[in-house]
Amino acid sequence: MTEFLEVVTSDELRCRLDGFPRTWPELISIDDAIGRYLAEDVLSPEDLPEHPRSTVDGYAVKANDTFGASDSLPALLRLTGSVEMGKQPDAAVETGAAVQIPTGGFLPAGADAVVMVEYTDRLDSSHIQVSKPVTLRTNVLDKGEDVRKGAPVLLSGRRIRAQEVGLLAAVGITRVPVFRRARVAVISTGDEIVEVERKPGPGQIRDANGHSVAALVRACGAEATRLPIVPDDELALRHTVESALEEYDVVVLSGGSSVGMRDLVVDVLSGLPGIEILAHGVAIRPGKPALFARRNGKAIVDLPGHPVSALIVAQVFLTPLLGYLQGAPLERGPLGQCLAGRLATSMHSTIGLEEYVRVRLVRNAEGECEVHPVFGKSSMLSTMARADGLLVVPPQTEGLSAGQTVEMVLL
Amino acid sequence: MTEFLEVVTSDELRCRLDGFPRTWPELISIDDAIGRYLAEDVLSPEDLPEHPRSTVDGYAVKANDTFGASDSLPALLRLTGSVEMGKQPDAAVETGAAVQIPTGGFLPAGADAVVMVEYTDRLDSSHIQVSKPVTLRTNVLDKGEDVRKGAPVLLSGRRIRAQEVGLLAAVGITRVPVFRRARVAVISTGDEIVEVERKPGPGQIRDANGHSVAALVRACGAEATRLPIVPDDELALRHTVESALEEYDVVVLSGGSSVGMRDLVVDVLSGLPGIEILAHGVAIRPGKPALFARRNGKAIVDLPGHPVSALIVAQVFLTPLLGYLQGAPLERGPLGQCLAGRLATSMHSTIGLEEYVRVRLVRNAEGECEVHPVFGKSSMLSTMARADGLLVVPPQTEGLSAGQTVEMVLL
Repeated sequence: MTEFLEVVTSDELRCRLDGFPRTWPELISIDDAIGRYLAEDVLSPEDLPEHPRSTVDGYAVKANDTFGASDSLPALLRLTGSVEMGKQPDAAVETGAAVQIPTGGFLPAGADAVVMVEYTDRLDSSHIQVSKPVTLRTNVLDKGEDVRKGAPVLLSGRRIRAQEVGLLAAVGITRVPVFRRARVAVISTGDEIVEVERKPGPGQIRDANGHSVAALVRACGAEATRLPIVPDDELALRHTVESALEEYDVVVLSGGSSVGMRDLVVDVLSGLPGIEILAHGVAIRPGKPALFARRNGKAIVDLPGHPVSALIVAQVFLTPLLGYLQGAPLERGPLGQCLAGRLATSMHSTIGLEEYVRVRLVRNAEGECEVHPVFGKSSMLSTMARADGLLVVPPQTEGLSAGQTVEMVLL
Repeated sequence: MTEFLEVVTSDELRCRLDGFPRTWPELISIDDAIGRYLAEDVLSPEDLPEHPRSTVDGYAVKANDTFGASDSLPALLRLTGSVEMGKQPDAAVETGAAVQIPTGGFLPAGADAVVMVEYTDRLDSSHIQVSKPVTLRTNVLDKGEDVRKGAPVLLSGRRIRAQEVGLLAAVGITRVPVFRRARVAVISTGDEIVEVERKPGPGQIRDANGHSVAALVRACGAEATRLPIVPDDELALRHTVESALEEYDVVVLSGGSSVGMRDLVVDVLSGLPGIEILAHGVAIRPGKPALFARRNGKAIVDLPGHPVSALIVAQVFLTPLLGYLQGAPLERGPLGQCLAGRLATSMHSTIGLEEYVRVRLVRNAEGECEVHPVFGKSSMLSTMARADGLLVVPPQTEGLSAGQTVEMVLL
């Protein structure tokens, strides 16, 4: 068996994975941009709003005319018109006058504040009483107050959510520059691996990794392409990896479990011109045999062949890498939401290895979140399906105690 | 202005939103199933594994032959062959013999346990020493131990993640029954609303809601279709809503802000045969004018016209509804990840209204998560873009104190 060339700690591996370039930007419709990251600052072509607007239902007035108004001594104003939505107000507000205005209505000329309808009384068709004073610009959203013309609406690096889409739409921006989705080739290797549709012969297994790793890649918003399964054949493997490196941003292999296949992958990768092996062997459990490399700014990841190890290594190291390539801020840990909970049982851990423990979350009667290790042999794929999250146990930890508060990464 | 017909509390509204039927199931490829929910139990067509396998690199043996083995008195075994990946082992393991086996290798006949390579020494080409005893089935994953033939691989209601895809692939299942994506019509209404591509005239605004609400719907995994903007015209509105109810599972209107338009929407909806108004007015801030209705098992939601209120109401009530329709468990609060943090400043709140406060998350020097209210007029759409989450202040709360631990929903 080939010796591990360079076993590194998980922290060291994270540092070495920092040096990849992000994907190229592309210009896409705001309607397709949800979850994507801006590749450039986006400047506003206009003021939002373009004209002062009322933020409440009420009456547009001159603030001065409400000075000192109270319940016992209300201000009396002439009602001289109303603002209609969708139309420019025609009547200006004169001293001593008020114009009815809806939320979002354009402030008429002459008005400098809006009194909320709650603090007014309609006396007759042409007079209102105001029982509370307003100051200048009260209940008014001024021209450019939300977004100023020429100023950034959103900065580079911003993740696009529904509210960013709304803000862009409001200033008339329909296309935005975002980082392209990473293109990921997923390659399963090994003589014993058969397509999922086939009935495995004696000693063979189905290509679970090809599908699960591709699913994880897609869950990160990247594009996954499953290439044909590569047998234990040096030439076929070299050819597949070399052409995948031409076409894709990231090449993810999942190694056959056989000793021969592991050697083959390492030999082929090490033999590629210009390759830089970032880690061959990582001080983690499970997943120690993982290999990470770089060539011409492209990432190559060889996951362990075992389906559980492959998924955990992909979750912990591949997903933050894909996130970063696509514009997300650098994450120094597994991607995904962290959740704190109370550990239900004590557990041992090995010094020197970062361990990933499959856990379930249980809300107890007090509504507290309890973290339970998943039972079952660690090689069972069903234990991954029963896991809500991964508890990451740092390498310098001998064990965790029941009742301790721990953070887990949701799967 | 039409009086609110029936203002309900947020809790009452959540109860009334429970009664919608889920979408119909559809059969899709496991490669497209990520994030979807199973509509039926999925049973395994075969055992996983189909044959006992080794879970470690080592030697397949008869456990009895290692009885009492130790460093000082190792057991001596004859090495009679090796298991190759992808092939059925040909040689059976006899008493006193051992066969080399890789992780995942199929256990040869006669063997009933595997000794890890770490506890062995190779003496010569045909003998090994074992320094630690194993018991029956040690380091063996038995036939059907991961998933048993005929037993459920995954139960109805399960969300499909990468590990579920892997497990399904491993037992040869390539298509699964999941709840269909909800089809949602998004309709903006009001004479003042113009398409985003157009330059708004005096008094007009762009259709920010149509795009932001559609984006939120898509972020929930549902299909959003933006219908043409409907002007303040009763006939056009009735026609649009009626035909949308034929084609879509959910019809989301975002009301014009004008008094006339609000009345019109209420009149048209109330006039539909078989309509059930679930809430007209909700005791929330912002978002009080929201309207929720049901007709023939389909949901109709009229969001407030104001872009901030529309998005918040959609986040708090529409996204959990869409999640439920598509198979997610019933959520009794806004959908999305909750995160706890320490409130940075005290704030007042109005008794009787459930309030949604836009907040930012800041990690302080101690790594603690601080929750800061977002500054700026509440009618500014840019405040939503600056918010990391929504702090939900229950209706019976007069205020929150600085330093208090609060839960916020990530946006």
